[in-house]
Amino acid sequence: MGRRSDARERLIEAAAELWHVRSYADVGVSEICERAGVQKGSFYHFFSSKRDLGLAVIDAGWQRIGVGEMAPILTGPEPPLERFARLFERGMELQLEMKEASGVTVGCNFGNLVVELSTVDEVLRERLSRLFDDWAGLIRHALDDAVAAGDLPEIDTALASRAMLAYIQGMGVIIKAKDDPHAVDDLLPLALRLIGADPAAVRPAPVA
Amino acid sequence: MGRRSDARERLIEAAAELWHVRSYADVGVSEICERAGVQKGSFYHFFSSKRDLGLAVIDAGWQRIGVGEMAPILTGPEPPLERFARLFERGMELQLEMKEASGVTVGCNFGNLVVELSTVDEVLRERLSRLFDDWAGLIRHALDDAVAAGDLPEIDTALASRAMLAYIQGMGVIIKAKDDPHAVDDLLPLALRLIGADPAAVRPAPVA
Repeated sequence: MGRRSDARERLIEAAAELWHVRSYADVGVSEICERAGVQKGSFYHFFSSKRDLGLAVIDAGWQRIGVGEMAPILTGPEPPLERFARLFERGMELQLEMKEASGVTVGCNFGNLVVELSTVDEVLRERLSRLFDDWAGLIRHALDDAVAAGDLPEIDTALASRAMLAYIQGMGVIIKAKDDPHAVDDLLPLALRLIGADPAAVRPAPVA
Repeated sequence: MGRRSDARERLIEAAAELWHVRSYADVGVSEICERAGVQKGSFYHFFSSKRDLGLAVIDAGWQRIGVGEMAPILTGPEPPLERFARLFERGMELQLEMKEASGVTVGCNFGNLVVELSTVDEVLRERLSRLFDDWAGLIRHALDDAVAAGDLPEIDTALASRAMLAYIQGMGVIIKAKDDPHAVDDLLPLALRLIGADPAAVRPAPVA
């Protein structure tokens, strides 16, 4: 936990950490306030409900992971297909860091919230659905660059980006089932098959 | 709900339905007993704990879906690659039936439990992890048949089966995010790319 003076930020950070390691339903407002060092009476000064905090956690998570980590990789200067190797390396690093910190394999915070909440909270589901669209859009950016560079044939990049996002989400489920981020070491390169590229062409570096 | 006289069966059926539509944490023993028409005092005659019921739900679900639905398709007499078209058709039918009954897109009960419980219940995670191994084994059976029949090149079928399971799990997350089983209509055929087959060769029939 940081020692920031902003209680709202601390509440978002505490909720994100606790929900990621356990689940939304399993961790209530009281525990989040306690972890954040914020009086429960102040909670509703910052958020109108647990759902409202949920929306803030999703948005902050996307700013950190989507805008902060994935966008620079997928829209950056590297050769387009190599960006996926970088993406998978960075994802593996983050999963290993979180396992080191928490003792368990946490998977994708966004996918976890989708699975837990999509049937019971339409507002949170809708926000997460749009986040998935944005995520697929970042993947498509790299695929469009790959087609433009002649590294891929003229594929349907909108479809291929959604397929890759599905596969990434599936790997998030697998590593949780195995409680081991490395359970997908050999599955990651196959993501390139989904987009019509040769997995042997781009190999993510192993992460210790 | 069936009208079976066996209270244990009714508890398993009620828990499976309620957890699938909401979540494990969101539905407790009292509500399950009420739904099953079983006195709460009798619950612990059948199950030592909520987790014990969880194990029974997982095993019953695998008997119904894995042994009852997937095994006959994946190890059956159809041409090997066409079995996947049948598998995806049947999966889509089941998702649409459950959406019709519940009003929401429920996804994969096993994957949902993995995502929700893997970090908080090691016993349930371990059971689900073995279930995933069995599932990949069924997929591998069809892939081995495809290689033997000359419908696939000599691929690593153990790896390819795990990749296909990951992709199936990912599609389960996507349909929940979109609250629409049909959100993966165009993604399903791409599963064949993961195993080195041409998606155009095997096309699942559309399900209304």
